[in-house]
Amino acid sequence: MRLRKVKNAKEIIDNCPYIISNPDKYKGKFSHIFNNNNEIHLEIGMGKGQFIYEMALKYPNINFIGVEKYESVLVRAVEKIMTRPLENLRLINIDAKNLNNVFDHELSCIYLNFSDPWPKKRHELRRLTSKNFLEIYEKLFKGQKRIIQKTDNIILFASSLKNLNNFGYYFEKVSLDLANTDIFNIETEYEQKFKNLGFKINYLEATKK
Amino acid sequence: MRLRKVKNAKEIIDNCPYIISNPDKYKGKFSHIFNNNNEIHLEIGMGKGQFIYEMALKYPNINFIGVEKYESVLVRAVEKIMTRPLENLRLINIDAKNLNNVFDHELSCIYLNFSDPWPKKRHELRRLTSKNFLEIYEKLFKGQKRIIQKTDNIILFASSLKNLNNFGYYFEKVSLDLANTDIFNIETEYEQKFKNLGFKINYLEATKK
Repeated sequence: MRLRKVKNAKEIIDNCPYIISNPDKYKGKFSHIFNNNNEIHLEIGMGKGQFIYEMALKYPNINFIGVEKYESVLVRAVEKIMTRPLENLRLINIDAKNLNNVFDHELSCIYLNFSDPWPKKRHELRRLTSKNFLEIYEKLFKGQKRIIQKTDNIILFASSLKNLNNFGYYFEKVSLDLANTDIFNIETEYEQKFKNLGFKINYLEATKK
Repeated sequence: MRLRKVKNAKEIIDNCPYIISNPDKYKGKFSHIFNNNNEIHLEIGMGKGQFIYEMALKYPNINFIGVEKYESVLVRAVEKIMTRPLENLRLINIDAKNLNNVFDHELSCIYLNFSDPWPKKRHELRRLTSKNFLEIYEKLFKGQKRIIQKTDNIILFASSLKNLNNFGYYFEKVSLDLANTDIFNIETEYEQKFKNLGFKINYLEATKK
């Protein structure tokens, strides 16, 4: 995603009560934030937040947390949630590589939507489905692990398929053309623009015991 | 592949010494045909035979068997082998669903190149990577199982990825754009035509203990 500098982004984020500003304080205790024991689903790199906002709206009995490292896009998600707050949605401003400091065996599902593909071989460990990230996720999940990925990038997708398979994940669903399936889908901002150009979207849903 | 009726196809096939006309007689003993204990690799649906012919030429220390059910395309492979016979290549005229009658724990690798995709949901069991075919293959392999697939069809490929993963196969290689990898590749006749139209070819290499 191209990043545009947003004036006062930091200030807007700091003043938003739906941003968890000291997330490591809640490690292992995120259910306290939501005041219930419902499942917690995480989107890593939620960008402007349309996907996770609409998911939270549709599934009030699931708690959603969106993680985004870039303030300039996070601020757009903040605007959405400030316009119409949702009790089951919170946002965090961190880098995915620090997730281990924040969550401890408490997530039920991770969404990876149009993540940075890092297409060059020398950057492959930066992909969010590289072995080192899969190892980080191991300690975030509670019970059955579930990863749901959407991407238009075929290098990232091929690498996800191989890595998840090699790591012991079981493929529940795989599609190389999401629009031509009956899989339920809430679109991201990027996806909407992209789909109109006629490109296909790759999708996978993988679980691990 | 569109099939054109070839005059005398049956007669040409019957008279070819490189066709194994009674393959069930060699069940468990195919090494006798080749007079050595080299690995045996099988291509299911070899069509006109360019892939397997060139593989046999390149790898004289591997035995290759091509299987094709349609006489009208098999005859083209027969013409190739009659022009320049290869001691490590034989052909069989059968349907893949009868492979269990022919081989018994003696194959090291199966190639599936541009197999019929059977894209309709109600035909999915006919795909050569459906669960029932994977069960047939279990009894054909000796030692480590290896399946290598190429296809332009994204419905077939997505279904292969799911089925092979669910069946316990380990992905050695996955690509959604074979031409842009360094994977060694001998092209089929279909692939050459197809690639020139600018379409991408999907590739996987999967093993199972």
